[in-house]
Amino acid sequence: MTREEIDLYEIIQAYPNFPKQGILFRDINPVFRSNDAMNFVCSEIYRRFKNIKIDCIAGIESRGFVLSSFVAMKLGKGMIMIRKAGKLPGETIGKSYNIEYGNAIMEIQKNSIERGQNVLIADDLIATGGTAMAAAYLIEELGGIVAGFAFVVELADLNGATILRNKGYKVHSLVVYN
Amino acid sequence: MTREEIDLYEIIQAYPNFPKQGILFRDINPVFRSNDAMNFVCSEIYRRFKNIKIDCIAGIESRGFVLSSFVAMKLGKGMIMIRKAGKLPGETIGKSYNIEYGNAIMEIQKNSIERGQNVLIADDLIATGGTAMAAAYLIEELGGIVAGFAFVVELADLNGATILRNKGYKVHSLVVYN
Repeated sequence: MTREEIDLYEIIQAYPNFPKQGILFRDINPVFRSNDAMNFVCSEIYRRFKNIKIDCIAGIESRGFVLSSFVAMKLGKGMIMIRKAGKLPGETIGKSYNIEYGNAIMEIQKNSIERGQNVLIADDLIATGGTAMAAAYLIEELGGIVAGFAFVVELADLNGATILRNKGYKVHSLVVYN
Repeated sequence: MTREEIDLYEIIQAYPNFPKQGILFRDINPVFRSNDAMNFVCSEIYRRFKNIKIDCIAGIESRGFVLSSFVAMKLGKGMIMIRKAGKLPGETIGKSYNIEYGNAIMEIQKNSIERGQNVLIADDLIATGGTAMAAAYLIEELGGIVAGFAFVVELADLNGATILRNKGYKVHSLVVYN
């Protein structure tokens, strides 16, 4: 398969009513499973951010760990985990964000970012953007600079990517569904 | 930093009493954060498995997603997610394994492996080996061949790696603690 033949829309699968009734789940596992597809994804992310200084890649638990690690290896950078509360040892800071019923908390280790470092945040998918905004808050709270956001899938009608762009962040999604 | 200077024992941090009293937590986040360290980790894993046919890398949720993705990019392979129950859409198979109080279930998508594919299982750490054995079961149940196991950290006194080796699996750990 050559790079030109990679059509992410064709590779990503849709599962109606998963994980529950009324949700159309976009499954990017078939992308992760294909090295050709991941090379394409990483090359596209590199291309879109090549004029931006990036010191490290932050991945949001847990599918974001896959994308961020592939991108980190491709770009020759390290990878930082942004995790659900209680998973990271040592000194951490947390940020709560809204989920469907109530709140959840994302955490980062205080020593994971040096002041002034440029951090690209990577996640498989952006919907309402709650975790993405929590991730940006955590990085900035530690003195890091959010170099941008890279997503494989953007669910445009849930507006998360638009909110991030309106806040002035550079956001690139490889596949957009309305 | 040159490859020879990478000392994983020095980079990995130990946190007493995390996540609870009596546990000494080995934190490999500092390894993930360093591209030099991850290049060293991936090169070592490549070196130890270079005579074994590998078609894809399976990662165990969720720190295993990081290692498996770095290794997959380094080796030019795809990455397969082995997840906690209920997270994967479509047809899946599951395998329960013992945790401290009771059982948990790991799942894999049925379409993630083709019969006869050689799968390297990667995880950050092996302790008692419960999740590693569940992962091997799932891959073999789908007709895959377990090419081996790659861990960054082995907790030797918890015997998981020994049990896997006694079952005939090829197991490599880069760092061993007693």
